Amino acid sequence: MLPQDMLTLGTKRSVIRELFEYGKMRKAIVGDDKVYDFSLGNPSIPSPKEVNEAVKELLDTQDPIILHGYSSAQGDANVRKTIAEHINKLHGTNINADNIYMTCGAAASLCISLRALLLQGEEVIIFAPFFPEYVVFAEGQGGKAKIVPPRADFQPDLQAFEEAINESTKCVIINSPNNPSGVVYSEETVKTIAEIMNRKSQQLGKELFLITDEPYRELVYDKDTVVPYVTKYYKNTLVCYSYSKSLSLPGERIGYIVVPDEVTDSKNVYASVCGAGRALGYVCAPTLFQQVIAKCVDCVSDISAYKKNRDLLYNGLTQLGYECVKPDGAFYLFVKTLEEDSVAFCEKAKEYDLLLVAGDGFACPGYMRISYCVDEKTIVNSLPAFKALAESYKK
Amino acid sequence: MLPQDMLTLGTKRSVIRELFEYGKMRKAIVGDDKVYDFSLGNPSIPSPKEVNEAVKELLDTQDPIILHGYSSAQGDANVRKTIAEHINKLHGTNINADNIYMTCGAAASLCISLRALLLQGEEVIIFAPFFPEYVVFAEGQGGKAKIVPPRADFQPDLQAFEEAINESTKCVIINSPNNPSGVVYSEETVKTIAEIMNRKSQQLGKELFLITDEPYRELVYDKDTVVPYVTKYYKNTLVCYSYSKSLSLPGERIGYIVVPDEVTDSKNVYASVCGAGRALGYVCAPTLFQQVIAKCVDCVSDISAYKKNRDLLYNGLTQLGYECVKPDGAFYLFVKTLEEDSVAFCEKAKEYDLLLVAGDGFACPGYMRISYCVDEKTIVNSLPAFKALAESYKK
Repeated sequence: MLPQDMLTLGTKRSVIRELFEYGKMRKAIVGDDKVYDFSLGNPSIPSPKEVNEAVKELLDTQDPIILHGYSSAQGDANVRKTIAEHINKLHGTNINADNIYMTCGAAASLCISLRALLLQGEEVIIFAPFFPEYVVFAEGQGGKAKIVPPRADFQPDLQAFEEAINESTKCVIINSPNNPSGVVYSEETVKTIAEIMNRKSQQLGKELFLITDEPYRELVYDKDTVVPYVTKYYKNTLVCYSYSKSLSLPGERIGYIVVPDEVTDSKNVYASVCGAGRALGYVCAPTLFQQVIAKCVDCVSDISAYKKNRDLLYNGLTQLGYECVKPDGAFYLFVKTLEEDSVAFCEKAKEYDLLLVAGDGFACPGYMRISYCVDEKTIVNSLPAFKALAESYKK
Repeated sequence: MLPQDMLTLGTKRSVIRELFEYGKMRKAIVGDDKVYDFSLGNPSIPSPKEVNEAVKELLDTQDPIILHGYSSAQGDANVRKTIAEHINKLHGTNINADNIYMTCGAAASLCISLRALLLQGEEVIIFAPFFPEYVVFAEGQGGKAKIVPPRADFQPDLQAFEEAINESTKCVIINSPNNPSGVVYSEETVKTIAEIMNRKSQQLGKELFLITDEPYRELVYDKDTVVPYVTKYYKNTLVCYSYSKSLSLPGERIGYIVVPDEVTDSKNVYASVCGAGRALGYVCAPTLFQQVIAKCVDCVSDISAYKKNRDLLYNGLTQLGYECVKPDGAFYLFVKTLEEDSVAFCEKAKEYDLLLVAGDGFACPGYMRISYCVDEKTIVNSLPAFKALAESYKK
């Protein structure tokens, strides 16, 4: 009677969410400081103070009927102009207000982009390991997810990628800095992806689209790490951005899609984005936070705590013998589990009150994701537990 | 290459939106006060002062990491509890927090409810005249819209309704107070709708769902007008609510769905709603405004200005010979046009700088919608133009 896919999605709770709920329950028993919860990707540093100041200033100076009123469906024109200019300043692009469509965050950006592009049954290529909801979003918009298996260093396997493209392929999602691996794609990698897509596009005689999911763009920790701006390398690129991580505003649901002029048939792709937004019930992005973004476009949360956490945890774990690619960005460590069955390993870790997410959900068994967006003391205090866990495997 | 339905939706601008843009252009030429723009359903009275006060208090007292952080997908538990208690107090219902799913406004509530219920190709019954996006939302979620033609008094044609129900029917959308007619469904009407649905449900051997879209619930102007709480009359009812009109917050995208325990297989329907929210990319409703709603749950914007506008415009137009059902709620007048071709009539009205929306878009040609959520002086000053327009038809 009810659509089985929706029922399944709503009934089968995400593993991450379940672990988080277990953690809350466990903390109530043994105490907050005795449970090392590395489950959620929820920012642990506050928004820059400019955000709340902007909210108050807007409330004090703007007509509430306009401030809280509908914006145009694609977002307030001045907000879009401000964002476009900011992107151009940072990346030397030529984006203008009419290339930007404001959204209710990254998930909305992705769903709207996919709905705008996909014909029924077309394929969406995704590189493992990946954020599990990508499959939900692709299937929810009538597409099919096609997974490219992971490489040991979590850079994309470009040969497998080329082989995965076929006449049913419509688009490819990349995510750099990556959730869950923290890996950043180099300029070289992005260039090669573009070359492959251009070649296959010509062979197949159809446009292939690259969707770049970039909520972690600003979360990189070494001054030499550059996150290439993908529209400059491949013409048919849609950028999905969110302020959830860069401004620590995940609950406020604010982000955007960029459809650059370089996209083939750009005006129509933008129109299709507008149509998809309507069909999915997104009337406009929240208007107060649209204006906040315009005022805080140059701000980023103070990410130094994440960098400190990364170094502390990476050094601590590798010293204990855990194997891990050092992440350049995001706030995750993707670590090899000490037995092949990563679900069993993460279950065992719970005995030490370590809450770790098995790699299986990210299409990468044999690994675990550790979200280091936590208090520094959680990391420091967790290391003996990680040590005891490792030792239990040496017996 | 692109999905034609999305492209069409994004390219074909809504008639209302086009008229509004024409109005802006025209105002720039002849002056703001010379154009009588009755096109948009945008609240013209500000939010109660409690709203902005609540925002500031939350910013001043709450941890920003939690305040702006993710809530659970169904919404913050305390916010849902507060809303449930408020509904119970007003309507004598037995709703609890677990019956409520917070959304990004009415459009999201409708799309999520439809996605949660509809199997591919199932029919959604809608009573004309109706808000045109209903068709977009139903088709966007894989359904088909089936329109019940209007009656002269814009109450639902219940015989035609019963005849419209067939084995493909899954749900029915009602909207009272109604956009565009302002009509409120009486208790008697709601009872009869429930009777028909129970009877047909039994005949067809399938559950039929009633979706009640209620953004205008609080906008009624006579103390004797009661808007029945539909869950008390028909068990399989989902309530789609939004604070866009009652708190004048249309841009902030905040509302909810109620799935009462009375619904057959209620837990599964709620789960399907959660699944649909995920599939459409709604991670959670905006968190700051979730908390604002909890603090302002008893507040409603001062709607006395709407009542004054309604009386002024209704009396003015009927004195000039226009025919109109006196609306009990919402902020629209749905008036018979002075020629059968309502598009031609509204085009002619533009010569008098009267911006009126033809009934055709609401599946009701021969009428026009007048949104009276405007300044009082716009109404007063428009009456001579309405008079001149009427006289032009007497020549």
